Amino acid sequence: MSKGTITCRIPVRLGDRSYPIVIGQRTLLGLPEALDFVAPSSRIAVVTSPSLYRLYGEALVEALKEAGFQAWWAQTPDGEEHKTLESAARLYDQFVEHRMERRSLVIALGGGVIGDLAGFVAATYMRGVPFLQVPTTLIAQVDSSVGGKVAVDHPRGKNLIGAFYQPRLVWIDVATLLSLPEREYRAGIAEVLRYGVIASPELFQLLEERMEVVLRRDLNVLAQIVAKSCAIKARIVEEDETESGVRATLNYGHTFAHAIEAATGYQRFRHGEAVAIGMVCAAAMALQRGLVSQEFAERQRRILEAAGLPTACPEEVEPHALLEAMRLDKKVSAGKIRFIVPREVGRVEIRDDFTDSEVIAAIRATYR
Amino acid sequence: MSKGTITCRIPVRLGDRSYPIVIGQRTLLGLPEALDFVAPSSRIAVVTSPSLYRLYGEALVEALKEAGFQAWWAQTPDGEEHKTLESAARLYDQFVEHRMERRSLVIALGGGVIGDLAGFVAATYMRGVPFLQVPTTLIAQVDSSVGGKVAVDHPRGKNLIGAFYQPRLVWIDVATLLSLPEREYRAGIAEVLRYGVIASPELFQLLEERMEVVLRRDLNVLAQIVAKSCAIKARIVEEDETESGVRATLNYGHTFAHAIEAATGYQRFRHGEAVAIGMVCAAAMALQRGLVSQEFAERQRRILEAAGLPTACPEEVEPHALLEAMRLDKKVSAGKIRFIVPREVGRVEIRDDFTDSEVIAAIRATYR
Repeated sequence: MSKGTITCRIPVRLGDRSYPIVIGQRTLLGLPEALDFVAPSSRIAVVTSPSLYRLYGEALVEALKEAGFQAWWAQTPDGEEHKTLESAARLYDQFVEHRMERRSLVIALGGGVIGDLAGFVAATYMRGVPFLQVPTTLIAQVDSSVGGKVAVDHPRGKNLIGAFYQPRLVWIDVATLLSLPEREYRAGIAEVLRYGVIASPELFQLLEERMEVVLRRDLNVLAQIVAKSCAIKARIVEEDETESGVRATLNYGHTFAHAIEAATGYQRFRHGEAVAIGMVCAAAMALQRGLVSQEFAERQRRILEAAGLPTACPEEVEPHALLEAMRLDKKVSAGKIRFIVPREVGRVEIRDDFTDSEVIAAIRATYR
Repeated sequence: MSKGTITCRIPVRLGDRSYPIVIGQRTLLGLPEALDFVAPSSRIAVVTSPSLYRLYGEALVEALKEAGFQAWWAQTPDGEEHKTLESAARLYDQFVEHRMERRSLVIALGGGVIGDLAGFVAATYMRGVPFLQVPTTLIAQVDSSVGGKVAVDHPRGKNLIGAFYQPRLVWIDVATLLSLPEREYRAGIAEVLRYGVIASPELFQLLEERMEVVLRRDLNVLAQIVAKSCAIKARIVEEDETESGVRATLNYGHTFAHAIEAATGYQRFRHGEAVAIGMVCAAAMALQRGLVSQEFAERQRRILEAAGLPTACPEEVEPHALLEAMRLDKKVSAGKIRFIVPREVGRVEIRDDFTDSEVIAAIRATYR
């Protein structure tokens, strides 16, 4: 069976917690060969959902067994509503049942929910066992699988219970994106565009020029944009592992996005869609203050629309309800809400001096 | 009100996770003054049980408020049976309710159960908020509050869900030991004796010579033995924060102890009592192999008995059941059980080459 083609290898340098991101095309079943370098033990839990098990998990578990590992499927439901302490508890139970030890390996196979949940369980089972991220959605490949943020949700806030716990390896096969539903795929593009705005005019321009090819999911272009995104994320995480400074810029669009998701009960928008709206809000707020040009705001809106992403806050959501939700965000410090605002393509800044009325005006500015 | 007398300050040097252990007599209410150096925020959760709140918590919360902090009582039940993910979940709820932020401070006021639980919640709430240990039992003062091991239990194993997460400060007031029930206090002495065996002939001898004064809970002697114990623990933790090597020696007596506790449903023995029996088992096993002298084994048994601690495994517990329980321990690697065995007072070694029949013979050797 083919082991695919590795496109590139991006190091994440964090001292004794360093690891590589390996990006390739159709490389999923090449993973067992790479494991000699990361796994000291033979027991491996592949944490994934029933549907992903059928798509990729079963073949991966078989390939691991053929390579001599004692691999098994740790079953977990997918979907944000299952990213809970209860799901974590059920994984702990399975780990005990299968006698997972301190040196046993956890592989998170799936999107952001599974990566965050499995990562949290790996971080806390026996005070931490090694784990790998094998992300299968665009949003997970370019964002959540890299950087060691793991968590489960609390009824009152997303990712409220978690840890900083780095994986030993991030293994990305962009071919897994071919099975993504269209809407989920497009939502991931919002996160890629965000990297363009915060750090890379080149990536932003690439997406402007080649959006059609991107939407067709050409594997070469996919490998390229995933690699560029991961490289940006890796540099930022290296500089600020626990988000005390520059890492916060990754939250561009996210302060609004989290509030929009919370205010709409996490049902109406996919995370990436909320991020797209959040980016438009942030740009509107910066524009009001004269921090960014009208041209930037329009350019950003055009490319988001080209990706088929929403760009307007739903009018039936009370702006004051969004403000209230923002105050519950983890990033709030001494009651002040921190925003990331754009200055130009490739440059953003962190500010906490916006008034409530500026925030509300920005939300309203996105209505049509 | 008197702020008591600080006896000594022991640094735990762990790079950017360094912190001091401050030991004193009647210093509990002096804590607010020390906080300027550790707490960047004004909101403080004092996690403690109803009974400890009445004894010490209420006065501490009041003192914190007087010093200008927004302190509040995060209520949690005490007792090993409550060291669960469910108790953690109830603390997360309270933290959200009280709008605890990333820079808010958690103070764990209590014994090992509260320290481990509050520490785990601090480690995972918003991916980690600063916390302090204010241990009020002997076992917590000399052991569990130092070193950053935090955890909750799983039905199938103690401390199975946890993290390595260092406190910002350990604040020890040995006067809090005056309110400990006799049996709990004596159980703590087992842990102190353990330090003697693994690292300090002086401490061992001090206890042999002054056991009566120790049992009388003379505050000066208490401050002395707590300080010596903490200093040993600090050095070991500095050398091996995440227990990949020498830190394992702290588990002297504990492999047997955990199994004895599990096999007796955590009801019959206090942890320190099980450790006392475990130390006798470990010495018996070492003696069988000729690794330690008969004289050592007898000397250890005498001092444990002088402290009123049990030294015999209960005969009705099947030795094979203990072996089975040991195999479930976190320290098991590739099925091998790791034991810490004594060589002489002040020196132990880590071995994983004991046969099942040696283990069983050692258990039986403790019967009378």
